[in-house]
Amino acid sequence: MDLQRKFGFQLKKKRLAMGLSQEALAERACLHRTYVGSVERGERNISLNNIVQLAKALQCKPSELLECFNDIE
Amino acid sequence: MDLQRKFGFQLKKKRLAMGLSQEALAERACLHRTYVGSVERGERNISLNNIVQLAKALQCKPSELLECFNDIE
Repeated sequence: MDLQRKFGFQLKKKRLAMGLSQEALAERACLHRTYVGSVERGERNISLNNIVQLAKALQCKPSELLECFNDIE
Repeated sequence: MDLQRKFGFQLKKKRLAMGLSQEALAERACLHRTYVGSVERGERNISLNNIVQLAKALQCKPSELLECFNDIE
């Protein structure tokens, strides 16, 4: 799975664990709903600032959102 | 310190701990030397793909590069 899809999968997992819709997450993170959807589908090479905003909205550490890459060589 | 400068500081710390020049790190990460310099100065809202490439070049986990944000509210 490529990096962007892997990140999108991780984001969706955290979002659903919080019981949030894409719209609710987007609102918390001050991002557009369609942007959150495109990130979850792996269509975005997301930036540092947006990673941190999403982590804040999910009440997790930004580093946690990148733990899905801990096994890559 | 803003997000980009905080990341840049963390990147420089990891690079120096590896005894690498900006040029050597850039070469390992398949990025341009001037780009690595601008990230370290906090001038770039770096993307996910480049974060992962730099982590690989530094032989650390991508999540480690974002640990500098663990204390932000």
